[in-house]
Amino acid sequence: MVDASCPLPLPSGDVILLGHGSGGRLTAQLIDELFVPRFGDPELARLGDAAVLDLPDLSNLTNLTNLSNLTGEPEGPGRLAFTTDAFVVSPPRFPGADIGSLAVFGTVNDLAMVGARPLALTVAFVLEEGLAIAELTAIVDSMAAAARHAGTRIVAGDTKVVERGAADRIFVVTSGVGLVPAGRHLDPSRIEVGDAVVVSGPIGSHGVAVLSRRTGVAFDTDVVSDSAPLTDLVEAMVAAGEVHALRDATRGGVATVLNEMAAAASVRITVDERAFPMLDGVRSGCAVLGLDPLYVANEGVCIAVVAGADVDSVVSAARSAPCGGEATVVGVVEAGDAGVHLRTGLGATRPLLVLTGDQLPRIC
Amino acid sequence: MVDASCPLPLPSGDVILLGHGSGGRLTAQLIDELFVPRFGDPELARLGDAAVLDLPDLSNLTNLTNLSNLTGEPEGPGRLAFTTDAFVVSPPRFPGADIGSLAVFGTVNDLAMVGARPLALTVAFVLEEGLAIAELTAIVDSMAAAARHAGTRIVAGDTKVVERGAADRIFVVTSGVGLVPAGRHLDPSRIEVGDAVVVSGPIGSHGVAVLSRRTGVAFDTDVVSDSAPLTDLVEAMVAAGEVHALRDATRGGVATVLNEMAAAASVRITVDERAFPMLDGVRSGCAVLGLDPLYVANEGVCIAVVAGADVDSVVSAARSAPCGGEATVVGVVEAGDAGVHLRTGLGATRPLLVLTGDQLPRIC
Repeated sequence: MVDASCPLPLPSGDVILLGHGSGGRLTAQLIDELFVPRFGDPELARLGDAAVLDLPDLSNLTNLTNLSNLTGEPEGPGRLAFTTDAFVVSPPRFPGADIGSLAVFGTVNDLAMVGARPLALTVAFVLEEGLAIAELTAIVDSMAAAARHAGTRIVAGDTKVVERGAADRIFVVTSGVGLVPAGRHLDPSRIEVGDAVVVSGPIGSHGVAVLSRRTGVAFDTDVVSDSAPLTDLVEAMVAAGEVHALRDATRGGVATVLNEMAAAASVRITVDERAFPMLDGVRSGCAVLGLDPLYVANEGVCIAVVAGADVDSVVSAARSAPCGGEATVVGVVEAGDAGVHLRTGLGATRPLLVLTGDQLPRIC
Repeated sequence: MVDASCPLPLPSGDVILLGHGSGGRLTAQLIDELFVPRFGDPELARLGDAAVLDLPDLSNLTNLTNLSNLTGEPEGPGRLAFTTDAFVVSPPRFPGADIGSLAVFGTVNDLAMVGARPLALTVAFVLEEGLAIAELTAIVDSMAAAARHAGTRIVAGDTKVVERGAADRIFVVTSGVGLVPAGRHLDPSRIEVGDAVVVSGPIGSHGVAVLSRRTGVAFDTDVVSDSAPLTDLVEAMVAAGEVHALRDATRGGVATVLNEMAAAASVRITVDERAFPMLDGVRSGCAVLGLDPLYVANEGVCIAVVAGADVDSVVSAARSAPCGGEATVVGVVEAGDAGVHLRTGLGATRPLLVLTGDQLPRIC
C-alpha cells in the first residue's frame, strides 16, 4: 500500500449522500474539501469542464523524462484538453437519447467548453450480471452513431461485470482528449464586468425527458432530451467574437453553472428569468414535478459569457449553428459581490443560489 | 436519439454473465462481436493496453478541422497514448493496496505497455449512498500518493452517487494520457520466431491478496498485492535491447496474456511452468482456493517478448529496475500453429488455453 500519511483534515460529513452527486453545494464541498486538497493539482483546482495541458516539444521527444510538471512551462503551440465523466442515468434509455449517446456527447461537450475539438474518446462499462445483451448492444450502437455524428472515434475501452444487485444495469464512463488551438483561452477567470451572458438554447429538456420515464414519477410529455454535440456551435461563436468563458449546463442546470462562473470570476451576474427560452412541455413538466427549470439538467445547452461589444455578432453566429437556433442574451456581468441575481417575472430581483440538496438524482 | 440503424448481427448470448468481465473467452467474445465491429476503429481493433494516436503538427494548429481521421497519416515525431480502466475490486481495501492506488497504477501500466510515460490521469467515481466519507478519503489519499509515486498528476474528475443498493460501495474509473517517443513501437504484431518470453516478477500475488480478504473465502496469508507502477522497469528494458511487445498480466493472468500475444502475432509460444517465479504463499493460497496461478491476476507484473539476441541484457536491466528483481526467461517464440504450450513440471507439454468461465470475479 502506498503510504499516504496525509495531514489534511477529514472532509465534512459521515457518509455519502445522494446530494453529493447532485452538482450542488454538497458536490462542491466534496470537491473543495476532499479532492482538490488531496490531489493537489493546479489544473484540477481550476475546476473547468476539461483540463488543458501544455504539450512538450514533440520533435525532441526521443527520451522521456518526468512529464508531470508541465504546468507553468511556456505554452506550446497547441494544448491538450482531457476530461472524464461517469454516467449513471436512470432509466438508461429515455426520450431523445440513452446513456450511450449521452456519454459521448457529454464528453465531447466538456472538451468543447474549453475550446477543443475531440481527438478521441475511451469508454469504460460497469455492467450488472443479467443485463440483456440486446440492451447493451442498442446502447453501443447509439454510442458508435453518436461518435460518428460528433466527428470523433472511440479508441480504447474496458468492461467490468459485477454480481446481480451490485450495480444498477449499466454505468458508462467516457473520457476524451482534444486539441485547443494556440491563443484560445476560455476560462471563467477571463470574465469581465460589462460582459453579456448568453444561453445557447431552450433549457430543462433533458431533465424533464428523463424524469418522464422514471419509475414512480412517469408522465406523458412530448419533451425529448436536448443531448447533442456543441463543438460546431462553439466554433461558430468563437469565430464571431470574443468569448471569455463557456460552461455546459448539465447537473444543477443553468443556475448552478452561473454561480460557478460568478464565483470563479468574483463578479455579480444578473439574469432575467423571462429571457430563458423554454419549451411549453418543460414549463408544464416542471410544474407537475415541482421543479425550478433553472436547476434542471441540460445536455446540449451552454452558457457563454461574451465581451459586451461582440454579443450581437456572437448570438447571430450561434443562431446559424447547430443547437444554437434560440441563442439568447439572458443577463449581464456587473461589479459587486460575487453571486448571481435573478430578475423575476414580477420585476423583483432576488439571489439565485446553489441548491444544497438534491433536486434530481441520477439525471446523467 | 441518434439513429444507429446498424446492420451488424447481434452478439452471442442473452444476458451478461460474470464471465464477460473475467478477461477470458467470454470477454474476448464481447469485444470481438459487440464492441470492435460497432465502434469500427482500427486503433480499438488492435486491442492494445492503450491506444496510440498520431498528433497533428501542433505548430499549424490555429484552426481545427476534423481530427478524427489521423490514423494512417504520416507518423509525427511523438505520439499520444490514451487508455481507460474500470475498477470494481471487492473488497476495495486489501493487503498491499486498495482500489485507489490499484486504479492509478493500473492506468500508468497500461500506458507503460505501449512505451509511454504518463502525462496526466483523470478519475471518475461511482459511489453508493451511505459509503463512509472516511473510507472514500482513505482511498483518495492512496490515489494521490500513488500518482506522486508514479510521477504523474490527476487533472480532472467526476463523481456520481447512486442510491443504496444500486452500486457496491465504490467503483473507480481512471483514464490516462502519455507520450510515446518517436521510433518506439511495442506491439504484439512485432513478435518474431526466435524471440524470448520474459516475466518481470513473481506471479499471482494480487489475486491471492484480494481473495484472502473476500467474504466467504478469507484466509490467513502474508501475501500482499504486487500493485506497482512499471514505467521505470519498461524504460530500463527498452534501453537495454530490442523489446517487441509488452503486456501487463492483469485479469486472466499470464496464461491469458500469452494467448493474446500468440494470437496477435500468429506464433506458437512455449513456456516452462517451473520457470515462473512465485511466492510460497501464492503457491499455498492457490492450492487452498483450487486456483491455477497462471490464471491469477497480477497488478505489477508484465510479460515482455524480446529479441533472442538481446534477452540477457534486457533481463539484466530489468533485475536492476523497480519491480524487476526476479525477471526471468520463461519461454520462447516458435513457428507453428498460433497458441501457447506449457512444459509441465513432469516434462510433458500441453496446450495452455484461455479460460471460458470465470476464475476470479471482481479481482480488479
